[in-house]
Amino acid sequence: MDSKIFLENGRVKSKGYAMLSKDSKFTPFEFTRHKIGKNDILIAIKYAGICHSDIHTARSEWGEATYPCVPGHEIAGEVIAVGENVSKFKVGDLAGVGCMVNSCGECEACKKSQEQFCENGKTIFTYNCKDVFHDNENTYGGYSNNIVVSEKFAINVPKNAPLEKVAPLLCAGITTYSPLKFSNIKEGSSVAIAGFGGLGMMAVKYAVKMGAKVSVFARNENKKAEALAMGVSNFYTSTDKSVVKERFDLIISTIPTPYDPLAYMDLLKFGGEMAIVGLPPHEVSPSINIIHFVFKAGKKVYGSLIGGIKETQEMLDFSLEHGIYPEIELIKPSEIDKAYENLTSGKAKFRYVIDMSTED
Amino acid sequence: MDSKIFLENGRVKSKGYAMLSKDSKFTPFEFTRHKIGKNDILIAIKYAGICHSDIHTARSEWGEATYPCVPGHEIAGEVIAVGENVSKFKVGDLAGVGCMVNSCGECEACKKSQEQFCENGKTIFTYNCKDVFHDNENTYGGYSNNIVVSEKFAINVPKNAPLEKVAPLLCAGITTYSPLKFSNIKEGSSVAIAGFGGLGMMAVKYAVKMGAKVSVFARNENKKAEALAMGVSNFYTSTDKSVVKERFDLIISTIPTPYDPLAYMDLLKFGGEMAIVGLPPHEVSPSINIIHFVFKAGKKVYGSLIGGIKETQEMLDFSLEHGIYPEIELIKPSEIDKAYENLTSGKAKFRYVIDMSTED
Repeated sequence: MDSKIFLENGRVKSKGYAMLSKDSKFTPFEFTRHKIGKNDILIAIKYAGICHSDIHTARSEWGEATYPCVPGHEIAGEVIAVGENVSKFKVGDLAGVGCMVNSCGECEACKKSQEQFCENGKTIFTYNCKDVFHDNENTYGGYSNNIVVSEKFAINVPKNAPLEKVAPLLCAGITTYSPLKFSNIKEGSSVAIAGFGGLGMMAVKYAVKMGAKVSVFARNENKKAEALAMGVSNFYTSTDKSVVKERFDLIISTIPTPYDPLAYMDLLKFGGEMAIVGLPPHEVSPSINIIHFVFKAGKKVYGSLIGGIKETQEMLDFSLEHGIYPEIELIKPSEIDKAYENLTSGKAKFRYVIDMSTED
Repeated sequence: MDSKIFLENGRVKSKGYAMLSKDSKFTPFEFTRHKIGKNDILIAIKYAGICHSDIHTARSEWGEATYPCVPGHEIAGEVIAVGENVSKFKVGDLAGVGCMVNSCGECEACKKSQEQFCENGKTIFTYNCKDVFHDNENTYGGYSNNIVVSEKFAINVPKNAPLEKVAPLLCAGITTYSPLKFSNIKEGSSVAIAGFGGLGMMAVKYAVKMGAKVSVFARNENKKAEALAMGVSNFYTSTDKSVVKERFDLIISTIPTPYDPLAYMDLLKFGGEMAIVGLPPHEVSPSINIIHFVFKAGKKVYGSLIGGIKETQEMLDFSLEHGIYPEIELIKPSEIDKAYENLTSGKAKFRYVIDMSTED
C-alpha cells in the first residue's frame, strides 16, 4: 500500500502492472488517473484479486483490448483522500471496488441500482473501458497502487474485515450471490451448483447459508470431501444425468467449458430456473434451440452478470456477517504471469490475490 | 352429432375421418374405442377444431405417425353415457376434450395438475398416442362422431356455451392463457405478443382482459385495425426492433417461422420473461447461445406447452365469463383436406372448426 499521494496537474499519479500487447508479460507501468472530483474518493489499493476475465480481456480474447492494459476489478484498500461532497467515506476508512466505477445514474436501470445494465450505455467498467465521464480516457484496474472512483461505486468495508479475502468477493462473490437472490432462494429451496471451481464454491457457501438444500455437479471427485464439509447434500460426478433423481428450484451453471444445458434443464422442477454465470470460450459455447424450451416447458433460463452496487454492498455485509470468503492464495505482483499460466492450464487451486504491499 | 350408442363386444363403435398415410387425403374410417370404464364418459362430438399441429402430426412431419390417423384435440360435444363412478358429468351435459385423455395421476406433476408433464411418461395425448391404460392401443382424435375419455380429462362446459367456439379454446385458448398466468400477468403489466395469427389473437384477448398494456408485433399491417379494436396499445410491423422504446414484463412468441429471439429479449425489462409457444419448423428453428443469456442478464426465457386440466377448466370459465373466443369458420368433414391446404399455404384467415353434424 502506498498512502502517499502524488499529483501531476491535479491528476493522481499511479504505478501499476500492465500488459503492453496481447502476448506480452506484465511489466511495471506508470500512469495518471483523473482528478479526485467532488464525489470521488482515492483508494490506496492493498489487495487485488485475479479474475479469469482479466485474462480473457488482457489477452484480447474478448475483443481487442486497449494497451497498456492494467486489469483488476476485485479491489480492496484504504481511503486516503475524499472529494468535498463525499459522505459515504472518510480518510482512513476501508473500501472496495468491483467491476464498475461509474454509470449515468439517471436511467431506470441505474435508479434500480442495476448499473451494469445502464440503459444509456454509460456503465464504466473498472478497466479497459472508455470513461465517457472523463474525456473518454481508458480505465486502468486494480493491479496498481491506487484508484480514483466515484463514492457511489465504492463499497463500504468495515475496519475488522480481512481485506485480502474481501477483494475477490467484489466479483466472484456478487456473481454468485446475485442469482441466488434473483431466484428468491431461501430456507428449504433446492439448489444445484454446476461446476465447482472458484465461482461454484462461493455459490455453494451462499446457498447453504441461505438455508437451501444444495447439490454439486463436478467433473471429478477431487473436491468431494471439501463440498461435503461445506454442507452439500449430494455430490454428483456422473455425466449421465439420468441417475439424478432430485429436481431443483435453481441450478447455477458456473461451468467454463462446453456442456449440455438441456441435461441440466431436465433436472429443474416445473417453474424452476437455470442461471448461467459461467462462460465457456465463445467458439464452443452451447446453444439452446427454442424447440427445447417448449418441450421442456415451464423451465426458465436466464443469465446473470455480476450485480448492482446496492446488491454488492448487501453481498459484502452478508459475507462478513457469516464469514463467507473464497479460498485465496496471496502472490506478489511479479507472480502475475505465473498465476495467469496456472489459471489457464487449470492448475490454480484457489483465487489468486495480489498483495500490493509487496510491489517492487 | 350422433347420440346413438353402438357397441361391439362392449367397445364403442366410432366413425371418423382418417389419413391412411402421410400423403393421403382424409377418408371416412370406422373403428372402435375402448369400453366406457367406471370413470369414463362417452361424448357425442359436435365440433372439432383443426390445429396446425394436426397437420404436422398427420403428415408425419414431427416423426412417423401411426396410420390410420384420426387427428383432432379441440373437441366439444354432449355427454351421452357415463361410467358408474363418474361424478363430474351426467348424461345431457356438455363437455370438452383438449390435448390429453389420461395420465398416471400419481406423480408430482399430475398431482399439481400438470398432466402434460407426467413424470412417469404416461401422458396420453388425444390422438396418435399409445394408450398404456388400454392395452397400448392407438388413440384416435376428434375428427369423429364420439370419444371415450376419463372424466378427469373432460372439461365441464355450461349449457349456454357456443360449442363451436369452445372447441378451439381447448388447445389455442389454453396455450396462450397458460403463460399469461405462469408469468403472473395482471392489471398494469406490460405484455407484447409476437405473431398475430390464431394463437396471437387469443393471447391478445386474454392479456387485454387481464388488464395488461398490450403491444403486438406482426409481419405486416393487414390486421392492424383488428388489433387496435381488441384494445392493443402499440402495433409494430418493423423488423428493426431498435425503434421500439417500450420494455415488457412478458413477451409471448407465437411465431411459427424463423426469427431472432435475441431481438425480443432486448425488449424485456430486467426480470422480464419471454414465453415461447410457437414452433417454427424444426430445421430452421432458432437457438439462443448461453453467452447471450449472460450479456442480456436477468431476462428469462421459457417455453409453454398447452396447460394442465385444472387450468384448462379455469381458462374455459374465464373465456365464457368474458366472452373471449377465437374467430372461427365452420366446415364440413369433406372440407378438411381443403382446410389443411389453406392452413399450409397461409390462406386460412380463421380457425377451422369441423361441424360433425354435417358428417356424410
